[in-house]
Amino acid sequence: MLAELKGLNEECGIFGVWGHEKAAQLTYYGLHSLQHRGQEGTGIVVSDGHALQGLKGEGLVTEVFKQDKLDELNGHAAIGHVRYATAGGGGYENVQPLLFNSQEGGLALAHNGNLVNANALKHQLERQGSIFQTSSDTEVLAHLIKRSGYISMKERVKNALSMLKGAYAFLVMTETELMIALDPNGLRPLSIGMIGDAYCVASETCAFDVVGAEFIRDVQPGELITLSDEGIQSEPFTFSTQKAICTMEYIYFSRPDSNIHGINIHTARKNLGKRLAMETQIEADVVTGVPDSSISAAIGYAEASGIPYELGLIKNRYVGRTFIQPSQALREQGVKMKLSPVRGVVEGKRVIMVDDSIVRGTTSRRIVSMLKAAGAKEVHVCISSPPIKNPCYYGIDTSTHEELIASAHSVEQIRDIIGADSLTFLSVEGTIAGIGRKEEGETCGQCMACFTGKYPTEIYPDTLLPHEKELVR
Amino acid sequence: MLAELKGLNEECGIFGVWGHEKAAQLTYYGLHSLQHRGQEGTGIVVSDGHALQGLKGEGLVTEVFKQDKLDELNGHAAIGHVRYATAGGGGYENVQPLLFNSQEGGLALAHNGNLVNANALKHQLERQGSIFQTSSDTEVLAHLIKRSGYISMKERVKNALSMLKGAYAFLVMTETELMIALDPNGLRPLSIGMIGDAYCVASETCAFDVVGAEFIRDVQPGELITLSDEGIQSEPFTFSTQKAICTMEYIYFSRPDSNIHGINIHTARKNLGKRLAMETQIEADVVTGVPDSSISAAIGYAEASGIPYELGLIKNRYVGRTFIQPSQALREQGVKMKLSPVRGVVEGKRVIMVDDSIVRGTTSRRIVSMLKAAGAKEVHVCISSPPIKNPCYYGIDTSTHEELIASAHSVEQIRDIIGADSLTFLSVEGTIAGIGRKEEGETCGQCMACFTGKYPTEIYPDTLLPHEKELVR
Amino acid sequence: MLAELKGLNEECGIFGVWGHEKAAQLTYYGLHSLQHRGQEGTGIVVSDGHALQGLKGEGLVTEVFKQDKLDELNGHAAIGHVRYATAGGGGYENVQPLLFNSQEGGLALAHNGNLVNANALKHQLERQGSIFQTSSDTEVLAHLIKRSGYISMKERVKNALSMLKGAYAFLVMTETELMIALDPNGLRPLSIGMIGDAYCVASETCAFDVVGAEFIRDVQPGELITLSDEGIQSEPFTFSTQKAICTMEYIYFSRPDSNIHGINIHTARKNLGKRLAMETQIEADVVTGVPDSSISAAIGYAEASGIPYELGLIKNRYVGRTFIQPSQALREQGVKMKLSPVRGVVEGKRVIMVDDSIVRGTTSRRIVSMLKAAGAKEVHVCISSPPIKNPCYYGIDTSTHEELIASAHSVEQIRDIIGADSLTFLSVEGTIAGIGRKEEGETCGQCMACFTGKYPTEIYPDTLLPHEKELVR
Amino acid sequence: MLAELKGLNEECGIFGVWGHEKAAQLTYYGLHSLQHRGQEGTGIVVSDGHALQGLKGEGLVTEVFKQDKLDELNGHAAIGHVRYATAGGGGYENVQPLLFNSQEGGLALAHNGNLVNANALKHQLERQGSIFQTSSDTEVLAHLIKRSGYISMKERVKNALSMLKGAYAFLVMTETELMIALDPNGLRPLSIGMIGDAYCVASETCAFDVVGAEFIRDVQPGELITLSDEGIQSEPFTFSTQKAICTMEYIYFSRPDSNIHGINIHTARKNLGKRLAMETQIEADVVTGVPDSSISAAIGYAEASGIPYELGLIKNRYVGRTFIQPSQALREQGVKMKLSPVRGVVEGKRVIMVDDSIVRGTTSRRIVSMLKAAGAKEVHVCISSPPIKNPCYYGIDTSTHEELIASAHSVEQIRDIIGADSLTFLSVEGTIAGIGRKEEGETCGQCMACFTGKYPTEIYPDTLLPHEKELVR
Repeated sequence: MLAELKGLNEECGIFGVWGHEKAAQLTYYGLHSLQHRGQEGTGIVVSDGHALQGLKGEGLVTEVFKQDKLDELNGHAAIGHVRYATAGGGGYENVQPLLFNSQEGGLALAHNGNLVNANALKHQLERQGSIFQTSSDTEVLAHLIKRSGYISMKERVKNALSMLKGAYAFLVMTETELMIALDPNGLRPLSIGMIGDAYCVASETCAFDVVGAEFIRDVQPGELITLSDEGIQSEPFTFSTQKAICTMEYIYFSRPDSNIHGINIHTARKNLGKRLAMETQIEADVVTGVPDSSISAAIGYAEASGIPYELGLIKNRYVGRTFIQPSQALREQGVKMKLSPVRGVVEGKRVIMVDDSIVRGTTSRRIVSMLKAAGAKEVHVCISSPPIKNPCYYGIDTSTHEELIASAHSVEQIRDIIGADSLTFLSVEGTIAGIGRKEEGETCGQCMACFTGKYPTEIYPDTLLPHEKELVR
Repeated sequence: MLAELKGLNEECGIFGVWGHEKAAQLTYYGLHSLQHRGQEGTGIVVSDGHALQGLKGEGLVTEVFKQDKLDELNGHAAIGHVRYATAGGGGYENVQPLLFNSQEGGLALAHNGNLVNANALKHQLERQGSIFQTSSDTEVLAHLIKRSGYISMKERVKNALSMLKGAYAFLVMTETELMIALDPNGLRPLSIGMIGDAYCVASETCAFDVVGAEFIRDVQPGELITLSDEGIQSEPFTFSTQKAICTMEYIYFSRPDSNIHGINIHTARKNLGKRLAMETQIEADVVTGVPDSSISAAIGYAEASGIPYELGLIKNRYVGRTFIQPSQALREQGVKMKLSPVRGVVEGKRVIMVDDSIVRGTTSRRIVSMLKAAGAKEVHVCISSPPIKNPCYYGIDTSTHEELIASAHSVEQIRDIIGADSLTFLSVEGTIAGIGRKEEGETCGQCMACFTGKYPTEIYPDTLLPHEKELVR
Repeated sequence: MLAELKGLNEECGIFGVWGHEKAAQLTYYGLHSLQHRGQEGTGIVVSDGHALQGLKGEGLVTEVFKQDKLDELNGHAAIGHVRYATAGGGGYENVQPLLFNSQEGGLALAHNGNLVNANALKHQLERQGSIFQTSSDTEVLAHLIKRSGYISMKERVKNALSMLKGAYAFLVMTETELMIALDPNGLRPLSIGMIGDAYCVASETCAFDVVGAEFIRDVQPGELITLSDEGIQSEPFTFSTQKAICTMEYIYFSRPDSNIHGINIHTARKNLGKRLAMETQIEADVVTGVPDSSISAAIGYAEASGIPYELGLIKNRYVGRTFIQPSQALREQGVKMKLSPVRGVVEGKRVIMVDDSIVRGTTSRRIVSMLKAAGAKEVHVCISSPPIKNPCYYGIDTSTHEELIASAHSVEQIRDIIGADSLTFLSVEGTIAGIGRKEEGETCGQCMACFTGKYPTEIYPDTLLPHEKELVR
Repeated sequence: MLAELKGLNEECGIFGVWGHEKAAQLTYYGLHSLQHRGQEGTGIVVSDGHALQGLKGEGLVTEVFKQDKLDELNGHAAIGHVRYATAGGGGYENVQPLLFNSQEGGLALAHNGNLVNANALKHQLERQGSIFQTSSDTEVLAHLIKRSGYISMKERVKNALSMLKGAYAFLVMTETELMIALDPNGLRPLSIGMIGDAYCVASETCAFDVVGAEFIRDVQPGELITLSDEGIQSEPFTFSTQKAICTMEYIYFSRPDSNIHGINIHTARKNLGKRLAMETQIEADVVTGVPDSSISAAIGYAEASGIPYELGLIKNRYVGRTFIQPSQALREQGVKMKLSPVRGVVEGKRVIMVDDSIVRGTTSRRIVSMLKAAGAKEVHVCISSPPIKNPCYYGIDTSTHEELIASAHSVEQIRDIIGADSLTFLSVEGTIAGIGRKEEGETCGQCMACFTGKYPTEIYPDTLLPHEKELVR
């Protein structure tokens, strides 16, 4: 229930194409399928081999790109971005891809993730006379590339990457090359596909299905892939890698039709729901999920428990930026917004309400109260992940310690606050087992830091951006 | 799969409030919850007891109404409309409520349904010198009221209603009265609720949940309800009534959280899915539904058959008016639009694909082919309603005879056309039993004309609008 | 200085074409040249011989019509309108041409002028069951035509015109005819021209120059001209005519490059300025005019008096609807808006400031004060028309008696109020002589009612619109 | 007639305020009065002493700034810019003021003029790793300031200015200082004024009249003025100054109500017209000017020659960006756009048509032909400046050598091309004398390079921007 609660629920999405005459159009459809990863802004930069040309704007993919403008983006290569502001503020200039032109040619960057040493690097660059045009951590990479002493672009990029710490999936494009880089922990998902003879790259594999591409493989931690007229080349830019894929991508962020490192998201979620049913023994009449991200887990729960799955909550599809929020007075009279309970389904019933996570607890409290007002006899809240006790520094907006209800409250206290008849979280072990990765190690190659506090990289409190500093105690 | 196929899937929705100081705001939220019934235009007219004042426009509720404009609509009474153009063309002037001002005061009308003798009445009125400003059949009622010889508004409305034939749920508002009328067959749903001391009326009960209203009762066929300073008054405007509620409201149109005449839509659909499972004996690995309207039926099918329900198809939420359609070339390369198959779920599986209806068959063919391309071993199409063989004249846009695939093809022919391994329709009896109405009569008070050809009213081929004439053979 | 003062300065403009394949495009350019006559809304209706089709909207010609939309208006005939709201309120529905469709075909109307018995006629029509969609007096003609017992459209129009009183220039178009009618006093200007073989009609001849048309002749009072496939036909619809051309068209409204009944507007204004110089004997250093409409008169004054003409006042061209008005505080600190004095020209000088009229006196006071603040030693205000003492009921918005400063104040009192060193109005005789019409009668065929109170038609106080009632005492 | 011909007629305008609580509002009105100097984009940056905040956009002042946004720009200091793209392309990022934020604070720049060594400096900075965000020459100054070794901002600015060559009037603002710099030749006009206790600075003095400011003095060539909490400080940043004010500012660009170095523009133009009359002896019936910039000269000509001034040409005020240009076919049929001849004034007359300049000659030819088609017996073209034979590198867009008709044709050849009965240019001496500056030197401190080819600075062909390179042979 991360999204409902915070109004900001996603990190960014990136997509790129190399070697297709309709590169911009394919990128449009690719970005469109990644829209759930960011709705604040979007852009596409194309290369026709001679020059880079871009279009970007604040808003949705369908708002920013119009037929005539999209048709002007000619070229065989393109990179695109959908933005959710994890670091840096809003504003047109922060919308990506960032595009830099100079006498030696163009340079375009698209980034998914969050650098933990961005501020330290920016301070140093400004002291040397560099002028930053954005408040995005992505621009740091551009300056590091420009100031690198190496001559070849690839060496300059590798040199620059060696200074970064944190989570990142980067697309770097010049007139003649498209480079793809993933951080040494592989925190963010990134996959390679093919459309006929052309290559494409995407944050999620759902984009491949939409553009008719075939999935080839996932990008590996610490890998730098270069696409150019000479074909595809891969090399590690570091050997100190340690896989730590963001668990929240499985639980909440990614689309159910995507696969990450071989595991389908819907299936993973359904399995988390089944695990949850196995870990609990609640007697109830109906199982319902909080739409949209918890539906798969609820169905899994119902299947494993034998309790029927029902549509107990419904989401209004037409709530967008321009929706007029009800006044406090109308809200108190019962006017609802995004979610409505289905009285015909829950009235007089004992309801198991499956959700994917609890962050601050306010939304859970509201939904429980809504279900009870609609006549539910009992409401049992079952969460298909462990309590979130620690902030994320890698691009997922899970609030500060102060806001995380599980950071300072026991499960029983939370249950009391949200007004549920019972509250169950999935165990850490059940989460790892439910997702079902087969790799070695305690976490099977996943980052579980928000649950366990064990971060896969260093964190630098002194150089964080202001809002990040609050996250650290 | 009506919506996917035709691009036009709904009739209209109406909402009204009497006796609440925030009448326009409540109507905004009410209309918002009815948005699925019409996305082409919307409007609100308010009365403050002295004058009527309105705002309308083409587009969604959130596009037409902005905070400042909504706040200017002061009054204790309001009627509103969301429009899907069933009769008459598009255009600003056809957006409802229609508002007419004259020396004797204002008159506002909102209408859900379709009159079958609108054209005949319009011809006669024009011959008498009346000037029509819209191509909407709704305006006929206004002229009939204005030309009626009676003095009281209620008598004039009853006099005018006596000349109408077809399906209609009308809201008629003057400065001092709000009248609610339902056709003698009760073809369209219409319910009365209360918000504190205020009355409200809505096409669907989901609107009551959203505005915090309590459901009171359904409006009865041939009933005229008058709300005024003297309270609520009900009287029949005809005694020749015969209940014939549109079955498609249960199967496809209404929101799953609404109840029509006491039956919850989600529950009805789930029961239709269960019935369907009972009428078939298909061996398969997974059940999947075509989102959104077939999900409940698919879950019912899974529950009754014991075959697991999975997310085999996913709908992109961000496809709207401004989406750039892929070119034919890109479509042939595999670029998809609204629906994507989930490869991780269907690959190598025998899939039961549950849908609510087949109209022209083109969408079904596309989805079957999509599932097979994603690796489904078999695709069994199960439809939770009987074949649609006859056009609807009551406001539901189910194409002409020529376009209705079931009108001229056997089930086996259709199966062959859509490329399914098997195709099953729910029986007429199963449909009636699944919905579960307890009333007497062959159809238990439902209109089954699109399946059976037995229309509850006369049809007048010579006076239909041009596009309707095509519907009749 | 009518415009500066009231913010509403013009009546409407009409333009029509018959027999040219680019009728809509020509109408666009014609309306564009008449834009000074109305900036609130504009529209074009075309006929291709089979159907009428229209486009209209609030705003300027360049705002309402875009290339793609204009190109869709195919047809050989067109009528267009630029609107300044003289009667009826604002709003989209009041924008003209009004277009009415019915089973017997379309009817489009464009009107310049103001009917003095519109309200009485409207009352009667509504009592008979007619529904009015606009608050425009123009719609009365449509209902009269529709209800007329005659069969031929021409007879119905003549029958309808016989009931109207006031000022009107009408364009009435059906699929097959374009009718042009001018009121029996010819209060509004209206001329016929030819573009090759095609006919055109315009409120002002400047439109002919812009579209490359040749001026043929002025429409005569009480004349009905019919354009159809049978060519041009003219007939009087009444013989009780009495020419009374609006004098304000010469003094203020029309464009300087137009001719009305053979007299060029710039030349008329220059002559009014010369007359004014002859009627006064003021010693001064410079003559300046209030832009734009008083420039010609000022040049005439300078030429006749021998005092040099200078640019003492400058108008900012970029003040439009979206201009942010300065706050009261900033205004008091000296922030100016539309007009600025030219210090380099007026400092230390005795200035003759020529303006075309004084309505309420507030603008004159502001300009005089502005000139003095810029260093003018003396400011002598010379008005190239007589004092306006009476309201206009024929479409010119000259305020009520109460607002007209000359209605209740002597010239010396006005001079004192506006703070001028002297104030001179042109005499009534000088005005008539300056314009230079050669016709017989006291006013040489002009309406001088706003100066003299002698109205050429009856006025009906009881049936005027509310704002007009205020005009009458 | 520079504007009519090229569609691009102006350089930029700048305005600044220091020490007034409504700094942004005053800047809005100041920029509005300078709108004639640039219509492509505009912006305002304010300082409240702690941070810089800006708003900019493409379009007119009234399009970019809305009341609510303007009210958010709080601060006691502001700089603003209206842009006409002289160097660099269009686009949002090139709109000024440019605003750069860094750890050490903000830096905002507004620039009027054109640097002739911008490209050479940019090449060098990029080689050192600087990233440019705009294609504007203005950004060079920002990088030079940022890379300067000096500590105080004033020293850094002086250090940076020492590397620039060309024409520039700069406003440089930090949180605590507003610096004003003018190039050593003083090519662009720039003046200082006071509004109560607050300082303001503007490209033209007309802005002072509009905001109620008092003119203090013109900024001197090579002067750097610093406004801060410590008041106003002035110092020369170079002693190698040589006044060379752009003559075109007097002849064409500036508003008639502005004064440059003590000379009123209207008066200068009228005197140029008088000089022109004295240098010619043409017999004619009427004098007319090409609106708007040639009106003053035409009036001067009429006054000196005794031939009456008439409105022979009229400009349509409503032609803007959204005007639909007539097709070639309609143009050939006589449809006109911005200018119309006044037949009633020119028919049968010998016309003297006064214009301020001839660039390519195409517009002159069109106007002459238009006047003859309207019946003019003879058309004598009199230009109130000498032939333009050389391109301008200082910010005025006078085309390349190839396009300048006077660069390769004699006066008689030009006369023949434009179809005039005679053609007269004002002499170089007459131009200098007409403007009437009293300073020493051959050109009295004016830049006459476009007439004489004597440029006041070096020109560097190798480092010019592409479009500038074409200008040089």
